[in-house]
Formats: sequence, structure tokens, C-alpha cells
Amino acid sequence: MLVNTRVVRIEWGDCDPARIIYYPRYLAILDACTTALIERALGMTKREYLKAYDFAGHPLVNVHCRFLSATRFGDDVTIESSVTEFRRSSFDLRHRLTANGTLAAEGLETRVWVKGHPPKGAISPAPVPAQVIEALSRQG
Amino acid sequence: MLVNTRVVRIEWGDCDPARIIYYPRYLAILDACTTALIERALGMTKREYLKAYDFAGHPLVNVHCRFLSATRFGDDVTIESSVTEFRRSSFDLRHRLTANGTLAAEGLETRVWVKGHPPKGAISPAPVPAQVIEALSRQG
Amino acid sequence: MLVNTRVVRIEWGDCDPARIIYYPRYLAILDACTTALIERALGMTKREYLKAYDFAGHPLVNVHCRFLSATRFGDDVTIESSVTEFRRSSFDLRHRLTANGTLAAEGLETRVWVKGHPPKGAISPAPVPAQVIEALSRQG
Amino acid sequence: MLVNTRVVRIEWGDCDPARIIYYPRYLAILDACTTALIERALGMTKREYLKAYDFAGHPLVNVHCRFLSATRFGDDVTIESSVTEFRRSSFDLRHRLTANGTLAAEGLETRVWVKGHPPKGAISPAPVPAQVIEALSRQG
Repeated sequence: MLVNTRVVRIEWGDCDPARIIYYPRYLAILDACTTALIERALGMTKREYLKAYDFAGHPLVNVHCRFLSATRFGDDVTIESSVTEFRRSSFDLRHRLTANGTLAAEGLETRVWVKGHPPKGAISPAPVPAQVIEALSRQG
Repeated sequence: MLVNTRVVRIEWGDCDPARIIYYPRYLAILDACTTALIERALGMTKREYLKAYDFAGHPLVNVHCRFLSATRFGDDVTIESSVTEFRRSSFDLRHRLTANGTLAAEGLETRVWVKGHPPKGAISPAPVPAQVIEALSRQG
Repeated sequence: MLVNTRVVRIEWGDCDPARIIYYPRYLAILDACTTALIERALGMTKREYLKAYDFAGHPLVNVHCRFLSATRFGDDVTIESSVTEFRRSSFDLRHRLTANGTLAAEGLETRVWVKGHPPKGAISPAPVPAQVIEALSRQG
Repeated sequence: MLVNTRVVRIEWGDCDPARIIYYPRYLAILDACTTALIERALGMTKREYLKAYDFAGHPLVNVHCRFLSATRFGDDVTIESSVTEFRRSSFDLRHRLTANGTLAAEGLETRVWVKGHPPKGAISPAPVPAQVIEALSRQG
């Protein structure tokens, strides 16, 4: 599977009074990493790929995160992201976040490929396009 | 003018490593207070009033905030919000945030009433409806 | 176990371009619900209970969330929170979030009771005090 | 004065149901830009400079932002940040945010240099060190 790597600086505003990252910020970082992975696979920005494949997004239906060691403002963390499995209209991803060479957090996501045009039309699952599967499945 | 009052608990996750509120969180709180004021004036939720007046929102074009004393997690702050002036397609608001009886922050916003249907159509300024002006101008 | 119930308004700023809640905001809501549960059990604010029990917090080490149906700005969601299990220095919680009478999301957290005084001293696990276990275990 | 330039990607999670940036996110971006400017001037991370100059931070007391054109997810914005004036224990900064070659937002901040060790000691203003003034005042 294609693995995308991102380096993200943990900012002062990402941290809480315990002086470590406020964990919901990790989830926002992982969400952006999922987007970055698909953007790299398809060679388009999210705005472009939503349009090109005429879909409403890839909302999360399931997330499981483990936090092994805390990170703090000023830390540069590395996140490796890849799809681990495709189903008809959903797919799983894994994000591994390392800081100073050790695994600090891991996130497993299940996302659904949805169609629809809110606010007018409701969203519903749709098959993940074969081209998208292929692009995310290649080596690299 | 109509004054709407809200009491908001400052949460752990609103605070930064200095153990005081991370100020961008104040701006999110004030944004929700603007919505609450208009909701109360019109007797509808934002989702309902966007539909009833067929507009895209009231984005901010100008904001000026003063932070007089820091608040911390566990503080319950009181925010009084009202419009201070209407123009054709824009309006000014003032939010006064008090904690423990003293003014802790003040926010002055200028917002524009916009029409349009993104992502398909771009947004553009539109006159604030007379009914909206009237509802926000009443005593209370 | 003690169950604490909170009603939270999903705000415009909690939602993303798909017009539904941006899921990391759910995690921030659940974090505040964990705090509210412990505050109610102990009859103190978080600032007070950190001091009374001289500890650094209850960071998350594991979180698992399922998102069953999307919520949108203007929705008032109800979250029921309780501890499901205590271990020596960690404990599990469950949050059930309902909207319009149906389960919209569920969150399972594992948290650790930690001591230490950052930034000077590092944090380390410590036994959950018997009084805390008792207060969170009572009916209600 | 030293000008620091940063390029920031506007993410999906930074945007609201109007499909444009949720403006409190701009304030978080500008806060990180202030830190990045000081980090570059002093050649240290924030964690290091808080320690090196033994102070508690540079909280905002006044902010004024103008939003001239909306940005959307996928936009890469450029922010140029510099100090515009120093006073004894406070200083002003300006951030100019451009997108696609035009000014999209401007932020003017007044910050105070504070000492103290929360939660034990309260914070209070302290003179901005001469070395810090010098480092931020150089050309570049």
C-alpha cells in the first residue's frame, strides 16, 4: 500500500494545562493526514478530488487510538499513513505517529465513501472507485 | 437593542500550557454567542434561520478583542451580546465577557449578511432583512 | 456506577464543509464530559479536584469511538457518561451520545491517574484514590 | 524588523459549513506564526526560549483582524509576521496573510511579556529582554 509521511510541529495551542498535546488535536492531525494520503495518491487536492469523483467526502465511522507517550509543544512528530483494507464502500487506515524515534501514538480509522449534496440531499455510502483503490494500493 | 446573555464553562481543553484560556477559543465562544443572539431574536435555530431567510451566513470581516484578565478551566463566564449598529448589508456586534463580576474580555465584530450557494455559487453581500433588524433592535 | 448526563449544543464552528460535526470536536466534547462526571462525583471543579487529590490529571491512553449517525449545527445532543471499570491506576469510561432519541456516537476511553508537576517533574501513574473510586461507583 | 514567512495549508477541519475557513482557526494560525517568528529570531523552540529567558509566555491583550477574502480547504496561504513596536513589557505584531497573491487577512496583536509560575504563582508583566528586542529588530 502507498504510505504517506508527514512531519507536523506540535504547537503551543495544541497543548493543554498538563503541557502535553490535548488529544483531540491528534485526531485533527490524523484527519489531515488521511486527506494528504489521498491527495498524494490521486495527485489532486481534496477540493479537486471531491469534484473529480463527484462525492461528498470520506467521513469516519470508527476510530481507535492508542497514546503511548505524550508529545509537547515544539516537538516535530512524523506520521506515516496508509490504507490497510478496502471494502465495497468503506476502507480502513492506519496512522503511526513517532516522536524522537519512538512510537507515540497509533490511530486506526474506518471511513465510508459517501455521495450526496448536503444541505439539499442526504449522504449515502457509495462504492470506492477502482481508480482510487488502485492509486492507494500502489507501492511507495 | 436586544441583549442576549450566555453562561459558558471554560473547559480544560480550552486552556493552554500557561493554564489560562487559549485565546482563539474565546473567538469560537463569541461566534456561538452571535448565533445565539440571532437565534433568540428570530426564535429559530441557525439552521432554520439560514433557510427561512435563504442566505449563506454572516461571516466576520472585522474583529477587535481586548483581553483584560485571563480565565481558567472551571471558570463560568457570562457573555452579554448585542448588535450596536446596522448598515445596509453589514452590522456590528459587541460581546462583553465577565468572570467573577469583572470584565475579562470584550469583542467587537463586524459581520456581513451574504447570499449564495457554495460550493456552486460564490457568496456576495445582501441587505439585512428588515424583520431581522427589527427583531435584533427590540428591547430585552 | 454514577451516570452523568449532559446536553450539548452542536455549534456552527463544530461542523465542517460536509455540514456535519467535525469528529475531533466530539472527542473534545467527550473529554469535557469525563471531567463533568468526576466533578459531579467529587462535588468539586477540576481545578479543585486536581488540588485536593494532588495529581496532574487523567490523560487518555486509549480511545475507541463509533459514529453511527452524523449530527449537525443546532442539534442538542445528550451524553451519558460513566466509569465501566477501575484498575489500580487506570479506569475505563463509556460515553453514549444520543441525538433525537437515537444513539449517534459512542466513545470508550481508558485513562490513567497521573502524579507529577510538569514542566519540572515528569508525570507517572499513581493509584486511583479509594474515595474517587467510591464516589464514581455510587448509584445515581 | 525581522520578517518571518510561513506557508500554511488550510485544512478541511479548519473550515465550516459555509466551506470557508472558520475564522477562529486563523487566530490559532497567527498565534503559531508569532511563536515561529520569535523562535527564528532567537534560534530556539518556544519550549527552549521560555526556559532560557525564564518567563511564562507572551499572552495576547489586544487583537484586531480584518478578513478581506475567504480562504478554503486546500488553499496554501502565506503569512508574513513581524514586530511593529516594542514598549517596556509589551510589543505589537503584524501578520499579513496572502492567498493566491492577494491580501486575504491581516492581524494586529499586542502581547505582554509575563513572568510567574502558574499554577503556584500568578503571572505579571516583565520587561522584554534587550536581547529579544535586538533579535526581533534585525533586518531579514
